[in-house]
Parts: sequence; structure tokens; C-alpha cells
Amino acid sequence: MNGAERLVHTLLDGDVDVCFTNPGTSEMHFVAALDKVPGMRCVLGLFEGVVTGAADGYYRIADKPASTLLHLGPGLANGLANLHNAKKAGSGVVNIVGDHAVKHLALDAPLTSDIAGVARPMSHWVHSSASAADIAKDGGEAIRQAKTAPGRIATLILPADTAWTDVPAEAPVPSRASMAAPARPQVPQSAIADAARALRSGEPTLLLLGGVALRANALETAGRIAAATGCALMAEFPAARQERGAGRVAAPRMPYVVDVAMNALKNFKRIVLVGTTRPVGFFAYPGKPGLLAAPDTELTTLAAVGDDLVGALQALADELGAAKLAPKGVAQRNTNLSLPEGKVDAEGVAQVLSVLIPENAIVVDESVTMGRGFATSTLGAAPHDWLTSTGGSIGFALPSAAGAAIAAPDRKVIALEGDGSGMYTLQSLWTMARENLDVTVVIFANRSYQILRGELAGVGAGTPGPRATDMLTLDRPTIDWVSMARGMGLDAARATTLGEFGTAFARALAVKGPALVELVV
Amino acid sequence: MNGAERLVHTLLDGDVDVCFTNPGTSEMHFVAALDKVPGMRCVLGLFEGVVTGAADGYYRIADKPASTLLHLGPGLANGLANLHNAKKAGSGVVNIVGDHAVKHLALDAPLTSDIAGVARPMSHWVHSSASAADIAKDGGEAIRQAKTAPGRIATLILPADTAWTDVPAEAPVPSRASMAAPARPQVPQSAIADAARALRSGEPTLLLLGGVALRANALETAGRIAAATGCALMAEFPAARQERGAGRVAAPRMPYVVDVAMNALKNFKRIVLVGTTRPVGFFAYPGKPGLLAAPDTELTTLAAVGDDLVGALQALADELGAAKLAPKGVAQRNTNLSLPEGKVDAEGVAQVLSVLIPENAIVVDESVTMGRGFATSTLGAAPHDWLTSTGGSIGFALPSAAGAAIAAPDRKVIALEGDGSGMYTLQSLWTMARENLDVTVVIFANRSYQILRGELAGVGAGTPGPRATDMLTLDRPTIDWVSMARGMGLDAARATTLGEFGTAFARALAVKGPALVELVV
Repeated sequence: MNGAERLVHTLLDGDVDVCFTNPGTSEMHFVAALDKVPGMRCVLGLFEGVVTGAADGYYRIADKPASTLLHLGPGLANGLANLHNAKKAGSGVVNIVGDHAVKHLALDAPLTSDIAGVARPMSHWVHSSASAADIAKDGGEAIRQAKTAPGRIATLILPADTAWTDVPAEAPVPSRASMAAPARPQVPQSAIADAARALRSGEPTLLLLGGVALRANALETAGRIAAATGCALMAEFPAARQERGAGRVAAPRMPYVVDVAMNALKNFKRIVLVGTTRPVGFFAYPGKPGLLAAPDTELTTLAAVGDDLVGALQALADELGAAKLAPKGVAQRNTNLSLPEGKVDAEGVAQVLSVLIPENAIVVDESVTMGRGFATSTLGAAPHDWLTSTGGSIGFALPSAAGAAIAAPDRKVIALEGDGSGMYTLQSLWTMARENLDVTVVIFANRSYQILRGELAGVGAGTPGPRATDMLTLDRPTIDWVSMARGMGLDAARATTLGEFGTAFARALAVKGPALVELVV
Repeated sequence: MNGAERLVHTLLDGDVDVCFTNPGTSEMHFVAALDKVPGMRCVLGLFEGVVTGAADGYYRIADKPASTLLHLGPGLANGLANLHNAKKAGSGVVNIVGDHAVKHLALDAPLTSDIAGVARPMSHWVHSSASAADIAKDGGEAIRQAKTAPGRIATLILPADTAWTDVPAEAPVPSRASMAAPARPQVPQSAIADAARALRSGEPTLLLLGGVALRANALETAGRIAAATGCALMAEFPAARQERGAGRVAAPRMPYVVDVAMNALKNFKRIVLVGTTRPVGFFAYPGKPGLLAAPDTELTTLAAVGDDLVGALQALADELGAAKLAPKGVAQRNTNLSLPEGKVDAEGVAQVLSVLIPENAIVVDESVTMGRGFATSTLGAAPHDWLTSTGGSIGFALPSAAGAAIAAPDRKVIALEGDGSGMYTLQSLWTMARENLDVTVVIFANRSYQILRGELAGVGAGTPGPRATDMLTLDRPTIDWVSMARGMGLDAARATTLGEFGTAFARALAVKGPALVELVV
């Protein structure tokens, strides 16, 4: 058995049984091993940003890491932006990055680069496997790293000769137990006491939630705490996955715009952080603060994102005598909505979503400006998961939707995507078609980097002139998403009114498999 | 005047007057400055790999750097792969990468990352500009670095507050002279004497050429040396730009396949390196050497790639008494070819190219397996430039073709692109349409990563089974390039025979502006 085969065995032993791939020559032994070792689901992406974005979406839904297979430094580089998003999401990923055979590195062949250097900014753990004898041990450590809560980016560099050399019989093999997810640390009693004190203060208090504190069970506990103390609930802005909709405790998401967020926070005297950090602005703006809470707001950390958040909330609820209370803030199904007609606007689109989001759907949201109001408006939709970009690097939604669909083949996935963002990783559509993934893609075609018009004003750079406007618009030529999606094997339709959108969206949802709706806005 | 405006002035003073952009919030002051400071041609790419690839192609043709404008760490990361190619090509690029305002960095906002760390593996020079007072000086140094032969990747990080703060009146401003390209070092007399000795040895000797030694004037000198000494000429495999075709001294390109390359080199007792390094295999293969020359071949370096290659060749010709000789190996126009009909094969395609490549065209070649024979077969075409991927990171040809077209608006650009490679940076087509670039794109649609089938066998990994085959094929679904190209605003046609290809290619060439031909092979 060679090193590549040993690594595939190790991944499978570690319950990493999906590999998103874009291989090259230096990964050919790993590819060949996929035939020899059964059990790995291999999913090809035609660009590495698809591969890593899919791994992010997969982790958020599967709660376990996938592996990626990437070609040398440039292949990894192409995947970095979505690894950045995954890192900020707390998604675990095991990257396998091929390298030249060790002796070949000294020759400085064209594809030689500092792979570890490329990996480091977006990885928690980077290691190059020096020999076939080490590969199982190194692979095991990569898996353990990736599974460490909330999830880490582990990058294992696999030199071609490590892959092709036979593994000595005496080489160590990690046990399955050693590759299990390490238990999340419990928070100390003092943190629970501090949080309880803040919540009992009688002053306006916010429970700000992130990570797995946004899952339904944790939110329900938070709702009990709210019932006991009158505190408000809010989700962090970069929320990796929030379980929401009818029947679930609602936690509105922190607003993006600095002034709006500051306004939403200004009346709270205390904020208790559960699986998130102090709220900060996405960007800095001249003359505006970076911290969004009022200067005199007292911040208390109940638990960091990698801690046992469910246990911490439960302990806090117990401490507050809230464990048996009915949770406050449970969203009700909005049954009196109908599909709207007429001119496209954000409210109308949100109404279509509220009516049509299927039970247990996964919504991957990168609708940027268009979608800022969607979350609030869809609280009364059927219960669903809502995934957002956590690192702000655009090109997240299409590949993440593909990965989510691999993780949950029985759930409908809806990707809400801006046209500007969608262009970054549009190759994802091909992977959706190839794997017949049950994803409905909605492209909001405003034919501009609309967000940047606001940002240009926001940073005090004034009104764009002709050259600046050129850099912010996508309307010359307009992009025909229907044509492009069909070119990659998807059913596709265009809508220009709310009525057309409702019809096209419903039709796409009704089919099991990928489809795209371009909504011109 | 704020820091961003000062930087735009500095770039223009340094004769950097093209900016390939994909900006975000942190770059909005730079974007606004483009309106206030006239003279910069701004070209938007809808993905950063387009931006950096275009900068590479631009440098290769313009012989001066363009700037890029990239959004934080992830935006730079998306551009790294083509920066890798540019770095290996010796293309100078001035990257301007926005960063958060310095005070905001401490808050670890979602888009925060180690930008310098991301930049370093693919940059020769990385610097973050600490204040508006420094920006002109720092910009000047970035320009000087980018212009240092053969061309370097200079990455200047521009924190948002450096961009938006007013520049103090006393801040230093670099002189135009300080931003001129530093002179290429002349090679020492000893190197010329050593090379002359090798060439006079009477043993079979190869002059292996790279960098600007592949321009017509240098090749002509090399042809005189060949006439005087009987040496052979060859171009390095990763040739950034070779001037070739009828009337020019031919230097066949080093073969890609290790065995073929070794065979081509095995009879040379001496190799004189001019602007290149010792020939090495692109990849390592079990049991095969990495060095391609025979073990007893003596290597002599006349000049490194950044040296004065033209001067060195001239001095060598003088030393050898070759300066007045007629150059050997001048390619003749192949006038007896006609457009072929019938089934598509590489020879037939090469024949179409030989007949139709227009005078002074720029061919950007990433045709990979399909195109391995094109270079030899097109020696008798009208004179043209031939650009190849130098770093082996695929997704090079489409953006580089766009950049070349910006550099030379009066020349026809032809991009020869594999379907697998083309998918990496297909957003380039939109930029071609928006800027009405005179580029004819040919997509060779073999619907597979054909090269990897050969590589799988080459590394001894055997014959691909079903899972491996799945990772090497693009045929489920097939990609409709005509539909995708039209979706981005290009005229497009499909050809399935040589006759159809000749007709469609000729029609595309006849139009001034972008067009795409998908050739199914």
C-alpha cells in the first residue's frame, strides 16, 4: 500500500468520507487510490474556490469535515478565499495539497512555490508529510485538528513521493478514537455566574449568540432565559448557520450598516456573549467607531465559540431558574401571505421566499444588498437553516450550497446569490449539474456591485464619477445568467416581475435537482 | 489631496497608467481618486484571477507594469495563481491591495487576514504603507521594484486610513527618474569568454534561450552565432514571450514530456544558458531524473534572465566573429498551405493556425495537450508573438489575452485555450466584451483534463478506474462554451470539423473585437 492509499484509508477511518477535488499531476496517486480504496465520495470542482467553498457548506450542515484535494501552491491559492470564509465560520476542513517530490523541489520547477506559506494565513494547522511512513499519523492529526471545535482548517501537504512510496509495515496507524472530535471545553462556573449576574441586573441586556448557539435547541434555551430575565436575543452578523423559521426562537441578526447596528445596540447596558466576540463593524469608516456597542455597555463572555455552548446555556438557564419556562420569542408561521405580483422589490422577494421556502430547507445567503431585509421578513417561513458568509469574501454561496446539498441530500438547498458575487465561483453550477444536487439558485441581477455604491458614500469618498461608476457596474454588457447556467447543464429561467419570480422559483423548487432563476432587479 | 489620490499621481508619474481592478470597500478612496486624477485606464475584472492574469499579459507585451487593485487578503488570494505565473514569467506587476484602517485591524473584523502573509509567496516585494505621508515614496519603490528586470511582483498594501488621510505638504514625492526601470546588469567578460569557449569546442552545443533572448532581435543574433559555430537553438519550455514565425530565427521550444525532452537534449555535450536556468522536468516521476540534460552535459551560463541579454548575445557574437554573418535558421513563410477539411486533429488545427494567424498577432497559448505540436507547425505562419504559461497554474490564457489586448490595441490577440483551463478564469470573457478587446478565443473542448490521463500513467499510477476517470473528465454535463460566451456578451460559434473551424476562426479574426470559437475535439 502506498502513501496515498494509506491516507485515503486514514480519512475514511476518521469518518472523512467526502473529498472535493481539483487534482493535478502531483495528486495522481491520490486520485488512483480513490479507485483502490472504496468509500470516498469524490466531487469534482472545475475551480478550487468551488472545492473549498463546498467543504465549508458541507461542514456547516454535516457537522463534520470533508477533505479537499488541491494541486500545489496555485491550486491552494485559488481555494484560499473560501477557506478564509470557512475559517471565520468555524468550519473544519482537511485540505490535502499535493507537492512536488521532495528531491524535485530543489530544482525550482515552474510550479514550485512556498505551499506552507500560501496555506498559513487561512489555516489553523499546516504540515508537510515527510514520508509514507508518517502519512497515516499526519493524516490523523489533520483530522483531529479539523474536528476541534468549532472546526479548524487543517492543511496537509503531500509530496508526490510520500504519496507514491510504499508504506512500511511498522508505520503507525492512528486509532479511530484518536481521530474523533475532541470534546468542547465546558465553561467555568464563574462565567455562568457572571452572565447570570448581568442578566439579573435589571438593566437592558442582550444575549448575543454565535456558532452552535444559533441551533434550534440552543436558541430554545436562550428563549427560556429571555422568558426568565426579559433579555433580548440577537445573532452575530457573520452567522455560519442559524436554525430559524416558524416554531423556533427568533434571534434577529445584527445589522450590517454601522449606524443601524449601533442604533440597535445603543440601549443595552449589558451584552452577554455566547459563542461570539464583541460586535465590530465590518469595515472602518472615517469618524465612526469600530466597536458597535455603546462605550458604557458592559460585555460579559459566557462562552467562546469553541466551548460547549449548549451546556453553557443550559447551565445558565438552570442558574436563572429558567429551565422549565416556555421560551420567549418563538416565531409563528405566517400563513396569511400570498405570492405577490408586480415590480420587484426586496419586500416582495422576501414575501415570495416566506411563502415558498420548503420545510427543512437550507438557505445559503449571499444576496448582499438585495437581501438585507430577507432574514427578518422570513421569520415566519417554514423552519429552515440560514447560512451566511462569515468572512466577507464573495463567491461563497454557490459552492457552499453545493457542499450543503452533498451533506444533506434529502433537503432542498436554496442559494440566494448576487450577480457580482456569483461571478466569482460560477463554476459551481457545473458541479451542481454533474452531481444532480437539489439546489435552487436565485441570482439577484442588479448588474452592479450595488453594495459598493453605499460603501463609497459611507467612507466619505463622495458620489462616483464616470470612472468610479465603471468599476461598480456590471451592465456593459449585461450578464445573461440563464445562458450561462444552461451552458453548464442547468435548467434556468429569467424573471423580471414578482409574479414571474414566484412562478419560476416555485417551479425550480418542485424539481429534485439543480435549477437557476435569474431575477432582474 | 488624500493618500489614494497621491498614489494614483505616483503611479502615473511612474508611467503605470493601466489599472486592472476588482475593488471593495477598503479600496473606495482609490476608486474615487480615479475620477479626480485623470490618465489611468481602469479595467474591471469580475474575479481577481482575471485582474492579475491581465496584468501578466499586459507586461509581456507592453514591457512595463500595470497596476492591480485588489480587495484585502481574500481578493489578493484569488489573484495569487496568476501572480505565480507572472512571477515565473518575469512580469512586473504593481499590486495595490487595500487593507482595513490600522485601528480596525485590532478588532479582527470578518475580512481581517494576514495580507502580507498571503502576498509573500507570490511577491518579490511586499510593503504596507503606514501613513499618507509615506504613500508616494512607497508607491515609487513598488514601481521601481516592478520594473527591475526581468520584472518583479511588487505588492503594496494600502490601509484604508492611509488612503483617506490628507497627505502633508512636506511629504516626499519620488522623481520620475527614480521610478524608471533600472538598467539590466551587463554580464562579465568572463561569462562571454566561457560561452565562446563552449561554442568553439567543436562538440554538439545548444544555445538555450529564455526571457527577452526570445525576442526577434536577440534571436537574430543567436542565429548569427549558430551560423558561426553550428550550435543549435532552443527556447525554454516556460517561454513568456517568443517572437517567431516567418522571417524570424526559429528556436524550437523544449518539449514538455520528460522522455521527449531528454531525447532532444541527449546529444548535446554543452548547453549555454541565455536568460534561463538549467532545464528541469515540470514534475517528478518515479524513477526518472528531474534534470533533463544528460549527466555529462556541461552547462555554461552566459546570462541570467534579468541581465542584459541582448548585449550579452551581441558581445558573444562579436567574440565569435559572427556579427556580420547571415543568421541561420530563419523560418520561411509557408505559402503552400490551404485550409484543411475533415476530422479535427492537432495537425489540422495547426494548419488552420498557420494559414490564418494574422501578421503581428499575439498568440496566448494554453491549449495544453491539444497544442503540443502547434508551435512547431506554425513556424511558417506570418510573424507573431507566442506567449505560454510560465508557472503552470491553469487559467492563464484568457486573462493574459485580455491584458495583451489592452497593451497592444492595434494587434490581433488569439487565445488558444483548453476547456479545463478556460473554466478557471472564464470571467475574462466579460472583460473582453466590456472593453471590446480584439481577442479571438479558441476553446479546445476535449471535455476532459486530458493532460492528467497521460500524467496518471506517467507517474506510474496505472489506468484510471471509474472514480479516477470521474475526476479527469468534464463530459457530464458537457460545457456549452457558445452559450456561456454569449451569456457574457461575446459572439460565439461552435465547430466540429476542421472545415467548420477554419470558417469560424476566419470569421472571428475578421471582426475587430472579441469572439469565441468552441472547437469540439
